[in-house]
Amino acid sequence: MKPGVETCLSPELIDQFDLEGKVVVIIDVLRATTCMVAAFVNHADHLRAFEQVEECRKMRAKGYLLAGERNGEKIGDFDLGNSPREYLNMDLKGKAVAITTTNGTRAIHSSKESSIRLIGAFTNKRAVANKIRASGLPVVFYCAGWKGKVNLEDTLLSGALIEELLPDFQCLDDSSLLAHSVFKENRGNYLEFLKNASHVKRLGNLHQGDDLEYCVSENLTEMVPFVEGDKILV
Amino acid sequence: MKPGVETCLSPELIDQFDLEGKVVVIIDVLRATTCMVAAFVNHADHLRAFEQVEECRKMRAKGYLLAGERNGEKIGDFDLGNSPREYLNMDLKGKAVAITTTNGTRAIHSSKESSIRLIGAFTNKRAVANKIRASGLPVVFYCAGWKGKVNLEDTLLSGALIEELLPDFQCLDDSSLLAHSVFKENRGNYLEFLKNASHVKRLGNLHQGDDLEYCVSENLTEMVPFVEGDKILV
Repeated sequence: MKPGVETCLSPELIDQFDLEGKVVVIIDVLRATTCMVAAFVNHADHLRAFEQVEECRKMRAKGYLLAGERNGEKIGDFDLGNSPREYLNMDLKGKAVAITTTNGTRAIHSSKESSIRLIGAFTNKRAVANKIRASGLPVVFYCAGWKGKVNLEDTLLSGALIEELLPDFQCLDDSSLLAHSVFKENRGNYLEFLKNASHVKRLGNLHQGDDLEYCVSENLTEMVPFVEGDKILV
Repeated sequence: MKPGVETCLSPELIDQFDLEGKVVVIIDVLRATTCMVAAFVNHADHLRAFEQVEECRKMRAKGYLLAGERNGEKIGDFDLGNSPREYLNMDLKGKAVAITTTNGTRAIHSSKESSIRLIGAFTNKRAVANKIRASGLPVVFYCAGWKGKVNLEDTLLSGALIEELLPDFQCLDDSSLLAHSVFKENRGNYLEFLKNASHVKRLGNLHQGDDLEYCVSENLTEMVPFVEGDKILV
């Protein structure tokens, strides 16, 4: 029996999934999980994720750098926003970072009953697939979406990860078949496809569209951050 | 300004949409909306939709034929199940039919604030697109899904309808781009694609898979049922 793949296209749908005994891959391509991976590429020690800005801000007293955005803009007094370039350019060696984001954090917190929670991005795509295989467990791709809505970039990465896992895994739900189909239609053409996306158009308006090319670059690192207790580690 | 297209992939997501002043197309390809269209092809007078079996059963006293399924099986004492072939084979001329289904009815009832509610199926696809154009209004494709889950066949029809409307309409959300992409990947190949779907596999188990070919046959009729008050009419 091949291990199963399921895909949750929005946090609003997560209650339909039984996560126990499974790997959950948190996916928030634009830009929370891409930033998290970038932080570890740049030698951060660990991260913590918070839903509320105020909770996050309190971590400054404990020596954390603060990171986060609201509606795509960096929070005023924070050290980092939600652009992976910032994470790559700032000296993070050995640093702890407290991050608050609207969508990704919600997905991390609502998947606690899974066995393993991995942080997935295009930048660590193949490494994530390898970790899933090594676990021997079924997997749920958990798309963080955008304010509860389904989004294109997270669906596309789910489909790309399914492509990595087939034929040794089997799709158990229609959302996985749908994600894989969208991946096949747009293979090698992510940028063009995403430039049409509502979320990307919004990013473009905020003059942060340059992140897009980095966020859809595949297999830049072998780092696969995972959630353990309150921390995100590698 | 081109009129907008949005797509709701599951009833669990409908609260994210503002339906006021829009056309809503209710889509439950397997098999509620396909059956509804078939009833009018076979000259039914009108339909009424109910969420509960008991409410539906009470309509017998008012002269209605009773139709409905639970978990894919016809309800014991009802006249019709949820196979479009039954609707085509029974004499429905001038008859009123009370129908209860798990997913489609929910979608009909939760889209009351829209301006126009149309019943969409592959069998009346082009006619639905023509009605949308004629209305001059923006449209929301409302996929009934399967027990709250996203499904392939409803997403695929949304994408096929988007193909009919482009380039005169514009996709306003990622779900529409996603549905259209899935359509393009599987154009002319619906049956093969859907045979992999979780819902279709389930239908196959119930020996009702023969409906599938009919349910994905395009443009068999110009009938476009619409919801008015408690009734579905043409």
